[in-house]
Amino acid sequence: MKLTLNRSEFMQELQTVQRAISTKTTIPILTGVKITLTEQGLTLTGSNADISIETFLSADNEKAQMNIEQTGAIVLQARFFSEIVRRLPESTLTLEVLENNQVAITSGKANFTVNGLDADSYPHLPVVESQNAIEIPGHILNKIVSETVFAVSQHESRPILTGVHFVLEDQKLLAVATDSHRLSQRVIPLDSGDTTFNIVIPGKSLTELSRSLTDEEEAIQISIMDNQVLFQTKTMKFYSRLLEGTYPDTNRLIPSSFNTEIEFSVPELLQAIERASLLSHEGRNNIVRLAISEEAVVLYGNSPEIGKVEEDLNFASVTGDPLEISFNPDYMKAALRAFGDTSIVIRFISAIRPFTLEPTESKGNFIQLITPVRTN
Amino acid sequence: MKLTLNRSEFMQELQTVQRAISTKTTIPILTGVKITLTEQGLTLTGSNADISIETFLSADNEKAQMNIEQTGAIVLQARFFSEIVRRLPESTLTLEVLENNQVAITSGKANFTVNGLDADSYPHLPVVESQNAIEIPGHILNKIVSETVFAVSQHESRPILTGVHFVLEDQKLLAVATDSHRLSQRVIPLDSGDTTFNIVIPGKSLTELSRSLTDEEEAIQISIMDNQVLFQTKTMKFYSRLLEGTYPDTNRLIPSSFNTEIEFSVPELLQAIERASLLSHEGRNNIVRLAISEEAVVLYGNSPEIGKVEEDLNFASVTGDPLEISFNPDYMKAALRAFGDTSIVIRFISAIRPFTLEPTESKGNFIQLITPVRTN
Repeated sequence: MKLTLNRSEFMQELQTVQRAISTKTTIPILTGVKITLTEQGLTLTGSNADISIETFLSADNEKAQMNIEQTGAIVLQARFFSEIVRRLPESTLTLEVLENNQVAITSGKANFTVNGLDADSYPHLPVVESQNAIEIPGHILNKIVSETVFAVSQHESRPILTGVHFVLEDQKLLAVATDSHRLSQRVIPLDSGDTTFNIVIPGKSLTELSRSLTDEEEAIQISIMDNQVLFQTKTMKFYSRLLEGTYPDTNRLIPSSFNTEIEFSVPELLQAIERASLLSHEGRNNIVRLAISEEAVVLYGNSPEIGKVEEDLNFASVTGDPLEISFNPDYMKAALRAFGDTSIVIRFISAIRPFTLEPTESKGNFIQLITPVRTN
Repeated sequence: MKLTLNRSEFMQELQTVQRAISTKTTIPILTGVKITLTEQGLTLTGSNADISIETFLSADNEKAQMNIEQTGAIVLQARFFSEIVRRLPESTLTLEVLENNQVAITSGKANFTVNGLDADSYPHLPVVESQNAIEIPGHILNKIVSETVFAVSQHESRPILTGVHFVLEDQKLLAVATDSHRLSQRVIPLDSGDTTFNIVIPGKSLTELSRSLTDEEEAIQISIMDNQVLFQTKTMKFYSRLLEGTYPDTNRLIPSSFNTEIEFSVPELLQAIERASLLSHEGRNNIVRLAISEEAVVLYGNSPEIGKVEEDLNFASVTGDPLEISFNPDYMKAALRAFGDTSIVIRFISAIRPFTLEPTESKGNFIQLITPVRTN
């Protein structure tokens, strides 16, 4: 293999596949990036136990300034290799595989010779059939991920809850995540033909996927196999394993009748919650208390050691019964951030039943649920 | 004590004194900021075992929008208090000391009540007589610190080497730091009258001092007592303890005759050193090798596991004997960064003797020394 190409274009590809490469893996070759050069272009592959990423830089891409002298393949230790490429002096670099899997990296007067590994010993990526692929715009996929993934469980005690549940049916894509204390569910219409699926994708994979999808406009093809999902753009394939098991029935968790409703501006409520949580974070329970009456809506936070805070909240409207309810402000902060700069309706049944949060303008396509904390 | 004032001006003062406040101190009251309000203005004080900072916000300062209703003093837990102030909703805040050292912090509809401590139990700062004060512009002080402080020892085995040695005599201020592997020495002319001193200031104190001196134009007054130094601006007093003991005689370490001289552009040499150190960092010894001959100047780095690098260096001129010398590239990187974007002359005696680095234009006022590593 011998190739000269543009350094910054190459660097970008390297950074993308590096998202899938862990330095802590127990399989040494997976600390490497696989580099495969054909007459068509350059393929980079990175993989760990959960995700694999493959990028393709076409020989036709003018920005890449590729000069292919000899095709071939090699695996290079990813972290070092990208550090080296990043610090090379010129705008292009030359890679040449020498004897014994040694690789010469040259740029200007700088000559590196690094030890590679045989590309044949790199594991094969799963084969995903794309016959049942659906397509979704990148920014929609990113949005649905960011609106749900924060609510997955961080604990491995119930592994299925560490993923986001995606259900495609009736031309609708539903995504839901819950850690059993709070839940976030998003539904979007999707022109998906006859394709249906019901899968759970690890939250961490989705976070990495979002970071890799830099072109918001691009369409993403999603294909599913028994235990793998493939997200594909023109230049990138992103594989993730699926979580096995049955996701709990979350539909029955969402209540439908309420006794108190209140409408808030999200940014204003978020700031007040942030202030209250300064003190609650120091207490043993990390809870804040919301008191709703006809006269006022007041938020309370306190910590025996530091002090207390109380704040009269601004609200757009309030209806129903007076209520005092306590909850974890961190769940509320995460929920409010997912809504963004809008207004929401919070609906309560009682101080001990989960309450719902929905954008005021929502028609049931985005709903969140938070379980309160019993204080007596 | 009762006071209303501008939040962002107050926040700035708080951030400055917080540099001196540690959350890890064993003396509880030192996790607090002391707030003292007189008719003249507001004094904030923070302190730890090494440094103390006192800021003053004048009642006449229009930006501060101060409304003094009642003078007094209190100590508040610094980290929390500044988090609270940072998140308050309005552009002004009101502080009021209630009964039992409780303090009300109010801004808009947000009402905090936090537990304070009696200001009388806050330790007194040292009294430093300013009769022998000298004056130095802020940017000069910052420069002399940044040119030397990186070379102090990070190890407590020889505590005196963790400080920078300052000697003022003959209208010259000399600053020198060494960790016994490398040394950096700066001399500046200073109109200091009859004042002389010979002190060692902890490197960490100097780093914090530099961060606190934001106004480059301002003059800094330096006063010294037995075991304390005070840096004073119009609005801030910065105290540091001095290190006790005799600083080693560094003068005799600097050689004066050489066998090889070479001139480099600092940015170019720095980049090459950074490339070579990518590999040397992985080796057991972290050394790079420089080979100087009449034909070429070549830099080598290698790590048995990863590979090797060699690079023909650009240089402005070379004279004297051929030489091969090995050194720690991290010392070289730090030295080069301290020089900035200029050209330097490196002078060698032999492969086993310390070599010097000086700006080409220098007249002996800035010199660095690096001890090579013996490789056989």
